[in-house]
Amino acid sequence: MPQPPLITLLTDFGLSDHYVASMKGVILTCCPNARLVDISHDVRPYGIAEAAFILGQAYSCFPPGTIHLAVVDPGVGSARRPLLIEADGQRFIGPDNGVLTLPMDRDARHTVREITAASYFRQPVSRTFHGRDIFAPVAAHLASGLASEHLGTPISDPVRLNLGPAVRIEEKLWKGITLYVDYFGNVITNFRPGDIGNISSHPFELALGTAKISQYREYFAGAPAGVLFVVPGSAGYLEVSINQGDAALLTGATAGSTVTLRFL
Amino acid sequence: MPQPPLITLLTDFGLSDHYVASMKGVILTCCPNARLVDISHDVRPYGIAEAAFILGQAYSCFPPGTIHLAVVDPGVGSARRPLLIEADGQRFIGPDNGVLTLPMDRDARHTVREITAASYFRQPVSRTFHGRDIFAPVAAHLASGLASEHLGTPISDPVRLNLGPAVRIEEKLWKGITLYVDYFGNVITNFRPGDIGNISSHPFELALGTAKISQYREYFAGAPAGVLFVVPGSAGYLEVSINQGDAALLTGATAGSTVTLRFL
Amino acid sequence: MPQPPLITLLTDFGLSDHYVASMKGVILTCCPNARLVDISHDVRPYGIAEAAFILGQAYSCFPPGTIHLAVVDPGVGSARRPLLIEADGQRFIGPDNGVLTLPMDRDARHTVREITAASYFRQPVSRTFHGRDIFAPVAAHLASGLASEHLGTPISDPVRLNLGPAVRIEEKLWKGITLYVDYFGNVITNFRPGDIGNISSHPFELALGTAKISQYREYFAGAPAGVLFVVPGSAGYLEVSINQGDAALLTGATAGSTVTLRFL
Repeated sequence: MPQPPLITLLTDFGLSDHYVASMKGVILTCCPNARLVDISHDVRPYGIAEAAFILGQAYSCFPPGTIHLAVVDPGVGSARRPLLIEADGQRFIGPDNGVLTLPMDRDARHTVREITAASYFRQPVSRTFHGRDIFAPVAAHLASGLASEHLGTPISDPVRLNLGPAVRIEEKLWKGITLYVDYFGNVITNFRPGDIGNISSHPFELALGTAKISQYREYFAGAPAGVLFVVPGSAGYLEVSINQGDAALLTGATAGSTVTLRFL
Repeated sequence: MPQPPLITLLTDFGLSDHYVASMKGVILTCCPNARLVDISHDVRPYGIAEAAFILGQAYSCFPPGTIHLAVVDPGVGSARRPLLIEADGQRFIGPDNGVLTLPMDRDARHTVREITAASYFRQPVSRTFHGRDIFAPVAAHLASGLASEHLGTPISDPVRLNLGPAVRIEEKLWKGITLYVDYFGNVITNFRPGDIGNISSHPFELALGTAKISQYREYFAGAPAGVLFVVPGSAGYLEVSINQGDAALLTGATAGSTVTLRFL
Repeated sequence: MPQPPLITLLTDFGLSDHYVASMKGVILTCCPNARLVDISHDVRPYGIAEAAFILGQAYSCFPPGTIHLAVVDPGVGSARRPLLIEADGQRFIGPDNGVLTLPMDRDARHTVREITAASYFRQPVSRTFHGRDIFAPVAAHLASGLASEHLGTPISDPVRLNLGPAVRIEEKLWKGITLYVDYFGNVITNFRPGDIGNISSHPFELALGTAKISQYREYFAGAPAGVLFVVPGSAGYLEVSINQGDAALLTGATAGSTVTLRFL
């Protein structure tokens, strides 16, 4: 028996208002057997790069065929395009502002369409809530079996953010950025352990915000209190952490902060 | 094949404690195939009017037959009545304090029952958690097919809030209130664009809290930084907003604040 | 027709990041018909005792056969063991740090296993996110029908917290603690009404933080403003509350605070 379609939702709408539930009601009205999973609704308002990171982390845990709705959309109502992307065996719906960068980066054979088929929208379309009136009904129609080509034609110039890995700028010097600061205050960099070599056994200094970090740990527990350290995080990148404390607060790092790593 | 029953939940319980999950467990024990959708659990504590607004916005996006549980209930344990309302093809369960005003306002043919059939309650009934012990099991029994008339007899005097539209008090002067302040700080008034005429092309001054607003925009993006404006919002009312900023903070407006609109 | 398996999730991960959704994606990849219910993801970070309390309150509302995932896990990556507990007709998965104390306390015939069958884990196993890589896939395999004995052998020395009731230390004097402070600021003690006798009709003084409380109420509504009172709460314990106010803030009580009750 085929499984019911799975739709995830990622927004910066917060959970206090009716906005997310309105989107879910619209989806379930059109596709009653859809299964809904929240990725996050507490993305920093208008935080497109953070949302792109979260989506990239989450979607790879979902099964083939999942439809992901990502509505972090400061340009709602303007001429920015609504997109449907097919990549990695899944589908992604959201505004053309870079929030869907990672599926495109990871799957070279992705296709991108501009969603133009207004007959699938909820009418009248509000100028301020395309989540409810465009993105949710389109996701529901796809989940009900509508083929992607009915929604619009392929385009080749979607907005893409630079969310790539840190780069080596001298033999012993790497330069990168902070991709994300999580709820615990862990600072997730774009340094991939496989790129930079054996940080666990070579002395190093990682500069982040106001801090210089030279300790390395494999996990959080047992690290001495009050000492910042680098840890190979679950997202596939080096993170700066502190045991049961807030590394972002201590370093002043935010998403986009510069990070440098020097081997000594 | 009939779709499984859909139950939404709206409370001021927050999401940190076990309260919402306890209600869901009770529902799923009694009606294992119920589908649960959260509307919000972050209504301002004891914020009956805000909850009524959120419910009114959300329910109209859900399919016929949906059952809505709205438990914002400062009077829990007292003599206030538990209600079941049938309106607009959906059912609404909650305390008799006005939280269910909008389905009654919108559907003149609604019916209201006082829920008295204690045999459908979870026993013993706590005096402080009717969400778990009365409202959740009643919703689950309805979802399982119980007819409304088994829960209690009709009443004609439910508590209703005044959530109506702004009124014209002079030829060029309208007076209304703030219905809701959303997560982004957008201030949702009770001015309906269709009532007040062509605000997009006539000079006006809208007074809200400490601010006078005379700009009109169709959507958020592209508005100049730092300038408050009026926008026709997705809820069907005029809203006061500021591009990527918090209009409520800037104006001092809260739910219930007076708003006046004067055409110049 | 058998109902689809029910899995609950309880973490201190917050809802802003991808962590909870990653766990859900892993579960639904392995067990597509699982039904997921959040208990809470806003447990105080590293708040093992609070999580144990929340789990104890919530699980007793869920039907037999439910699988509960409780990932409050400051020791992640260290030698602390992952556990599977069968008790009260339900199953519980989490780290061996006391978070699963209450099902063990309540069902003397419980069984506890150390989860060691790495073939059921998501590979490679991160040292910092066992929720995604160990606990979620194990829950999904159980939900898909895997027998518990395939996951590991029984152990007899799990970590257990002392979450027992208040004790009588003199004829008229009881000593206990605060088990939990809820979202509204209600302070939930470990005094069970059935143990301590008729507090509703005997003068008493309950000392909590900076406050002495001598009022008793059956419910919140109607209590005079500004007066702390004791109420028999929905969790089965006496709570200290104040009508539409925050009793924890007023008394300074936190989880673990000493509480004494003296009958006069």
